Amino acid sequence: MKVLWLFAHPDQRSLSGALMSHGLRTLEAHGHQHRVSDLYAMKWNPVVDAADYDHDPTDRFLVGPTSERAYTEGHLSPDIVSEQEKVTWADTLIIQFPLWWYGMPAILKGWFDRVFVRGFAFGLTDPATGRLRRYGDGRLVGKRAMVITTAGARASTLGPRGVNGDLNDLLFPLQHGTLWYTGISVVPPLLIPAADRTTPTAYETATARLGDRLRTLPTTAPLAFRHQNTGDYDDDLLLHPHLPPAPTGPAAHYASQPPPVHD
Amino acid sequence: MKVLWLFAHPDQRSLSGALMSHGLRTLEAHGHQHRVSDLYAMKWNPVVDAADYDHDPTDRFLVGPTSERAYTEGHLSPDIVSEQEKVTWADTLIIQFPLWWYGMPAILKGWFDRVFVRGFAFGLTDPATGRLRRYGDGRLVGKRAMVITTAGARASTLGPRGVNGDLNDLLFPLQHGTLWYTGISVVPPLLIPAADRTTPTAYETATARLGDRLRTLPTTAPLAFRHQNTGDYDDDLLLHPHLPPAPTGPAAHYASQPPPVHD
Repeated sequence: MKVLWLFAHPDQRSLSGALMSHGLRTLEAHGHQHRVSDLYAMKWNPVVDAADYDHDPTDRFLVGPTSERAYTEGHLSPDIVSEQEKVTWADTLIIQFPLWWYGMPAILKGWFDRVFVRGFAFGLTDPATGRLRRYGDGRLVGKRAMVITTAGARASTLGPRGVNGDLNDLLFPLQHGTLWYTGISVVPPLLIPAADRTTPTAYETATARLGDRLRTLPTTAPLAFRHQNTGDYDDDLLLHPHLPPAPTGPAAHYASQPPPVHD
Repeated sequence: MKVLWLFAHPDQRSLSGALMSHGLRTLEAHGHQHRVSDLYAMKWNPVVDAADYDHDPTDRFLVGPTSERAYTEGHLSPDIVSEQEKVTWADTLIIQFPLWWYGMPAILKGWFDRVFVRGFAFGLTDPATGRLRRYGDGRLVGKRAMVITTAGARASTLGPRGVNGDLNDLLFPLQHGTLWYTGISVVPPLLIPAADRTTPTAYETATARLGDRLRTLPTTAPLAFRHQNTGDYDDDLLLHPHLPPAPTGPAAHYASQPPPVHD
């Protein structure tokens, strides 16, 4: 694999940092290549702004068209270009972060906001149908991704009956709405629970689980999200009536349900 | 009402900016007070960092305990304190943003990451049970919130059968995992769809809908999220077995389902 490892914890001395180090060593031991974007260490700017795009501030700032034009004409901000080059190089993305307010830290959300511009990450149209090629198709098809997240909560409270909601549902905007949107296949996330009270035993378990997941990543079955353009959605992009009305919610967008998240 | 209006679009000349202006005028016309946090105009820093907390960088940076101590001891970064004062003043939060990658722009996600620290937004424990008071209870109980989001997509594609997933499911980490977590009641979101091709007629419709929602906000039924500590969840914080096994997903965490999102 050629792995781009995105890391969004402010302290490398954290459990998150230790897990990343272990993960990178595991990749090396198995002959895989890796590059790291340690967003805090890079002082990554997560804020989409007109300055990214050489945009005349007296004109209205339409984010979509402006960013697409900057990409096409080659005057995106250099820090964005550098990240896009890493994505192009990689066949696999690891996206590691502590779960803050049940989502990504802002510094990581803003990596997607700024790097995944139209033209680079999406925007291909099928000439036959006029449909945008997205959700299982598009510019980043052929790549894989895996989320690794550390959470203070116990795993069961992030499961199907847990008070916090199921982890795959919490990650739906990232796993489905961002990664799958661009064509990337997403394998089930790795949850490291109870992260703020990790015992030595729990740490051993966590590194063993991480090692297993990295070793098997190339052959792990991805989440079975439905494809937009292969018959599950109608011309209005609604699920076809013949598809079972239940389950509803995010689960409706899987052809088969994801494995349960466990610790 | 005393309304804190959070605004996260980079250009006030946008549709989003026009809608905020209309909304603020509507509030004034009905005798409500308002304060605005225009995050781009404020050049809000969305990145949680040790510098927020007067933290010794040679020590490991444990975000939760460090931020709580800084709050308790009164040495949080002044920009955070200023936002907390606005939240304390307000009885109602409006959270307005363009839907980027099916979630909040990073600058807004980082407002919650930095402002909603333990001690201020959560962290009360029930002395009788030892349970954390959260999800419908806690430090911010008694306040209301409403999300207003503009999206390029058509409304139906953000509905229960739409390819992008249902808007309430996409907003679950914010509406349930953040706002409801702190005790805030959340009324249904206002979606302004097809936002990058707004006709004059569509704009009239959007301002009319916004005006209606603001006028009725004090009496609008909030989303019926389940309360953590009033019997729906067991001692392990799992939904009680006697609760219907269907629906699953985010829907399981509502006592009654939210009204459909429409345009």
